[in-house]
Amino acid sequence: MNIGILGLGTVGGGVVNVLTKNQAEITRRSGKNITVTHAAVRDINQDRICPTDDISLTQDPFGIVNNNEIDIVLELMGGTGLAKDLVEQAIKNGKHVITANKALIAIHGNELLELAKDNNVYLLFEAAVAGGIPILKSLEQGLSANQVELVAGIINGTGNFILTEMRDKGRDFDDVLKEAQALGYAEADPTFDVEGIDAAHKLAILGSIAFGCKLQFDNVSTEGISQISGEDVAFATELGYSIKHLGIAKKIDNKVQMRVHPTLIPKARLLANVDGVMNAVLVKGNAVGPTLYYGAGAGDEATASAVIADLIDIIKDTVSHDILGWQNFEDYPACDTDDIESIFYLRLLATDKPGVLADITAIFASHSISVEAVVQKQIDSKNNAHIAIITNMIKTSEMNEAVAEIQKNDFIQEDVKIIHVETLD
Amino acid sequence: MNIGILGLGTVGGGVVNVLTKNQAEITRRSGKNITVTHAAVRDINQDRICPTDDISLTQDPFGIVNNNEIDIVLELMGGTGLAKDLVEQAIKNGKHVITANKALIAIHGNELLELAKDNNVYLLFEAAVAGGIPILKSLEQGLSANQVELVAGIINGTGNFILTEMRDKGRDFDDVLKEAQALGYAEADPTFDVEGIDAAHKLAILGSIAFGCKLQFDNVSTEGISQISGEDVAFATELGYSIKHLGIAKKIDNKVQMRVHPTLIPKARLLANVDGVMNAVLVKGNAVGPTLYYGAGAGDEATASAVIADLIDIIKDTVSHDILGWQNFEDYPACDTDDIESIFYLRLLATDKPGVLADITAIFASHSISVEAVVQKQIDSKNNAHIAIITNMIKTSEMNEAVAEIQKNDFIQEDVKIIHVETLD
Repeated sequence: MNIGILGLGTVGGGVVNVLTKNQAEITRRSGKNITVTHAAVRDINQDRICPTDDISLTQDPFGIVNNNEIDIVLELMGGTGLAKDLVEQAIKNGKHVITANKALIAIHGNELLELAKDNNVYLLFEAAVAGGIPILKSLEQGLSANQVELVAGIINGTGNFILTEMRDKGRDFDDVLKEAQALGYAEADPTFDVEGIDAAHKLAILGSIAFGCKLQFDNVSTEGISQISGEDVAFATELGYSIKHLGIAKKIDNKVQMRVHPTLIPKARLLANVDGVMNAVLVKGNAVGPTLYYGAGAGDEATASAVIADLIDIIKDTVSHDILGWQNFEDYPACDTDDIESIFYLRLLATDKPGVLADITAIFASHSISVEAVVQKQIDSKNNAHIAIITNMIKTSEMNEAVAEIQKNDFIQEDVKIIHVETLD
Repeated sequence: MNIGILGLGTVGGGVVNVLTKNQAEITRRSGKNITVTHAAVRDINQDRICPTDDISLTQDPFGIVNNNEIDIVLELMGGTGLAKDLVEQAIKNGKHVITANKALIAIHGNELLELAKDNNVYLLFEAAVAGGIPILKSLEQGLSANQVELVAGIINGTGNFILTEMRDKGRDFDDVLKEAQALGYAEADPTFDVEGIDAAHKLAILGSIAFGCKLQFDNVSTEGISQISGEDVAFATELGYSIKHLGIAKKIDNKVQMRVHPTLIPKARLLANVDGVMNAVLVKGNAVGPTLYYGAGAGDEATASAVIADLIDIIKDTVSHDILGWQNFEDYPACDTDDIESIFYLRLLATDKPGVLADITAIFASHSISVEAVVQKQIDSKNNAHIAIITNMIKTSEMNEAVAEIQKNDFIQEDVKIIHVETLD
């Protein structure tokens, strides 16, 4: 089996290293000798994390996808431009393709999978979601007896690292972000990570595999963590919650909701204890109940583990074809964001005078919102009270209307902060 | 596809119920209509948890395994006598077999798998380990690029329920065991659960799949939780640990160690937060690093979820053949229990007089054992000091010799309690 790799950076180098160090095990499991024969790189003279003595290097990636000696192409270069052209060409040339490229699959997956089906080859992407955690295979095979009701995942390690540091060390967002960048966890432009775009790509993939519907990246609502303050983190802790940046996919009445946003979850939940750069995905099936999958969401060898697992599945022909079966299903319409029901955390800064809490709760009552928990912090030097409230389960539109009304009052000193709460029970 | 079930109790009934309620999803995923046509039961007139209108019931299980219309047999009756004969007969008749029977596989798996190979059929048993958690598929496929270094699992829900109650409510072992029996978690004879035999069956299976060696149930060393006292639980908490009943499989220098025993693990570990009847398995691969799989370890529909996942894999022919590949490997010899290196927790009851701790630490020092942490509780009415010690990593034989020496001293008032500690880092 001859393998051609597009991109020999962190992930590509990791694949070569793992194939080398675990050769005996992988040969036994796959029944074949797997050899990386060709690799396309941007600069042929650059230093690499893996040996390249037995690999024919080229700066022409089309030379790889058009090479008749190559059976399987690994697209590990990233991006949605050139990478897409190369994947298309490889598929048209009858080659199986494995990719770790979440953006490519989330945005162009429907057409690429259709193309793969037409050309009778596989397009696999276990490594695109939650790195080394075999979450897609678990959804496709391990949980194949279930209707999935909920997927909730910590699927961006950078964001989880930042929130963990904020909680455990009382640090500010900006301060931790700088450290994450210095450690190499976050890119120079951290937008993809902290604003939830990377997580949204992954969630679109998780949702489609979980519910058996087409990829709907445009229907993922996305909110980042850059607006989470130290005060929110402290209030959450006091109320018995941890703030995590979750990707949540739910199917209710055949409507799919997919959303990435900061979320308060009870401290006792396993997900609340997934810290640092680690990833975890909670999957609730209607037969199995809640299950959870935890591991490294990034890193050279962890990601390589998922890429090679796909490789072995192709070689042994143990690929679950379900992934090509979703076209038989009608698309599930997306749930309108306004219609999503959720529990909410609200943080208010209000002048401390008699009747303020009564006014707020009266507005809540008029929208059928009840207060499940409230914490009020000591008055600050400007005579303002810092108040955090946990509501009951309520429609988003109702919540927004109530907050708009509260916001109009003179005693409210800044924008009311709204964060979702999920009990995950 | 015609399915025959042996046993229509909790798991068998659950399988029928899940196949019924998720029929559309399962048909889409498997590409076939799956119908349970026949079932063998002990008493044809007994009440059942599932509808049986479309199922031909019989009290003759051999009628099922010898029936030419049946393609796949589900052995869900349990036991290692009749169940073994039936599985053998089904395999010889060219039928695929799926079982949830951990004892059958742990004890007779090598010969049954050999027989299945000779007859060109599958024998699958995802449901035999950790109920609904797809842990065997994850080891076989999701982690196929890895050499597995460690498996550590909470794989008996009854034991975990008991230990959780003891820790959270300060209750005694006997008290909680009685409640577990009343709740139906524990059998009238709780030996299999609390003495670790059930976990040992599962660990033997996990070890062989993880390391690619034959089943070695006889090499699993097993210690139950019935000797864990409330004092141990309290000391563990004070030292920053949780006591869990773990099944641990390690491969070090090509020797396999498999052991089931109570274990102190640091509270911050995810496994320490797996509570109640839930199961979880930590798997450390040399590429992916630590991963964890969590879910219900028992229950009708959770177990059915795993049985049906195997069923769909057979129907779609996406079974990982690795399970039949292990014969290519020489058996890994078992590690001698005396040679196992571990950190230990020791609890001593000693007369409170000057020099006691000095005497104890002197004995430790003579065996190259160092004290990493020590807690001493207030003197009781008999002038005895309650002492808990955490050691460094040390050979089991060395630890046992040191404890034997300590035990000889007049100031020691009862047998020194020894419990393993695993940092799982």
